[in-house]
Amino acid sequence: MPVLRLTVAYDGTAFSGFQRQPAVRTVAGVLEDTLSKVLGERVAVTGAGRTDAGVHATGQVISLPVARLRVPLERLPLAVNALLPADVKVREAAEVAGDFSARFSARSRAYVYAVRTAALPDPLSARHAAHVPYPVDDGRVREACAHLVGEHDFRSFCGVLPENGITVRRIEEIAVERRGVLLRIEIRADGFLHRMVRTIVGTVLECGWGRRDPQSIPAVLAARSRAAAGRTAPPQGLYLAGVRYPDGYDSFAEPPIFGPVPMPEAPAR
Amino acid sequence: MPVLRLTVAYDGTAFSGFQRQPAVRTVAGVLEDTLSKVLGERVAVTGAGRTDAGVHATGQVISLPVARLRVPLERLPLAVNALLPADVKVREAAEVAGDFSARFSARSRAYVYAVRTAALPDPLSARHAAHVPYPVDDGRVREACAHLVGEHDFRSFCGVLPENGITVRRIEEIAVERRGVLLRIEIRADGFLHRMVRTIVGTVLECGWGRRDPQSIPAVLAARSRAAAGRTAPPQGLYLAGVRYPDGYDSFAEPPIFGPVPMPEAPAR
Repeated sequence: MPVLRLTVAYDGTAFSGFQRQPAVRTVAGVLEDTLSKVLGERVAVTGAGRTDAGVHATGQVISLPVARLRVPLERLPLAVNALLPADVKVREAAEVAGDFSARFSARSRAYVYAVRTAALPDPLSARHAAHVPYPVDDGRVREACAHLVGEHDFRSFCGVLPENGITVRRIEEIAVERRGVLLRIEIRADGFLHRMVRTIVGTVLECGWGRRDPQSIPAVLAARSRAAAGRTAPPQGLYLAGVRYPDGYDSFAEPPIFGPVPMPEAPAR
Repeated sequence: MPVLRLTVAYDGTAFSGFQRQPAVRTVAGVLEDTLSKVLGERVAVTGAGRTDAGVHATGQVISLPVARLRVPLERLPLAVNALLPADVKVREAAEVAGDFSARFSARSRAYVYAVRTAALPDPLSARHAAHVPYPVDDGRVREACAHLVGEHDFRSFCGVLPENGITVRRIEEIAVERRGVLLRIEIRADGFLHRMVRTIVGTVLECGWGRRDPQSIPAVLAARSRAAAGRTAPPQGLYLAGVRYPDGYDSFAEPPIFGPVPMPEAPAR
C-alpha cells in the first residue's frame, strides 16, 4: 500500500485544533474530507504534531496510506489546494516507505513562537503573534531558556499528561532572537508534551518582564508540578514550523510574520 | 469646539469597508460607537480615505469634533483600545486646529499593495496579500507604472465616478520593490478615485505577467473608459498606509506583512 507524505501549512485561527473531532472544524477533518474526494477513496491522516485550537503551522507533516494513487504525485498539491479552503494548503507531496508515519518516524520538531513587545496592540498582527504590552528584557528570556535545554522531566510544563505517563523530553536547542518589535523563540526537541511550548514561553516571558527570576527555572523543573510554571502563552503566537525525519527530510518554513521569505531559485531547465 | 485627530490601524477582512452603513459592521461604525462611550457624547468621524470592504489600514487618519475632552489626550488610545475589538486599534491621538478635517486637510495619501508571487498559495498570508500564481516580470510592472506618474485623467481606473465628476488626479510617486516572494507597490497621490489603486495594480500586474504591453498604458489613460483598464486587484492586498497634512504630520506605517517594524527608541528620561 503506497504511503503519502504531505507537508501542509495552515492558519489555526478558525480551526478547533488539528485532531479530527465530531461536529467541529479541525485541520485533519478538512484535509481528510478533501483528500478523500481527490483520491477517490476514504483516507485517514496522521499528523507529526497535534496542534491546539488557534495554533498555526508552516511545516506540519501528515502521512496517509492510500490503496491506489489516482492523481500524479506532482499534480496532487494543485489538485488538493483547488478544493481546500484558503486557511489550509498543501506545500508538497511525496511517496515514502510503507512504514513511514508522520508522527512516529519524526526525529525532531521545531516550534516557533512570535511575541510582539510594544505598548499598543496591532490589529494586523493580532492573529499571528502574541502581544505583550510590557518591556521585555531579551537577555533574561535567553537566560531562562538556557536552563531548559537538554534532557529534562518537563512535567511542570505539561497540560494533559501523556497516556504512557512519560514526561521526559530532550530539547536540542532554544533560539531567542529579536526582530524589531517581534521576539522570535524557536524550540527544537525530540518531542513535546501537551501545551509544553506555550507553557515554556509563558514562563520565560515572566522572567523577561521581571515577574520571575531566570535562576528559578531549575526549581520549576524539579517541582514536577504545573503550578510551579507560569501562565500558558496564547495560541496565536505559536507555529509548528518544521519536522525532521531520518531520511533527511526537513519541512521547516519560516512563519511569514517575520518577513517575506526569499524567492525560490528558478528551476534548472 | 476641540477637534481630535486619531491615527488608526485595522484588518479590513471582517469589515464592510470604512464608511458607516446601516446593519453592517464598518470601521467608522465601530469607532464611532466606541469613541462615543469613552467620550460620553455622540461623535461622528471623518476618515482620510474611504477604504472598501476587505481593505486594510496601517495609517488611516480620522477627525472628530468633540464638545468636551473628558479623557486626558495621552490616555485616550489606551482607553479606547481597551473597548475596541482586536481588528481595529488607535495608534495615536492629538488635538488639532478647529478647521482640521482628516479628509479635506490631507495633502497626499499613500497606499501600499502587497502581491505574493509564488506557485502555491500560503494560508498565513491569504488575508494580507494578493496571490498571483504566475511569474511576474518586475521590470514590466515598473515600466507600466512609470506611465501613470504625474497629473492624468484617471477615469479609466475609476469604479464609481465622484459626485463632482472630476477624475483628474496627480500621482506623485509609484515605488515597485521586490521583497522576497512579495512585490510591494506603493502609490502616493493628492487623492484617489473609487477603486483606483486596485484597478491600477490589476492593470500593471497584467503587464507584469505578459498579458498586456506596458507601452499600452498611455492609450488606457486616453480611452477614459473603465473597460480599457485591467481587472480590479483583490482587496486583501491593499493598505491605506499613510496620510500627510500641511502641518507636517505623516501617519505612515509599514504593513507588517513586509516584516517586523523596528523597535521604537526608548523615550528620553
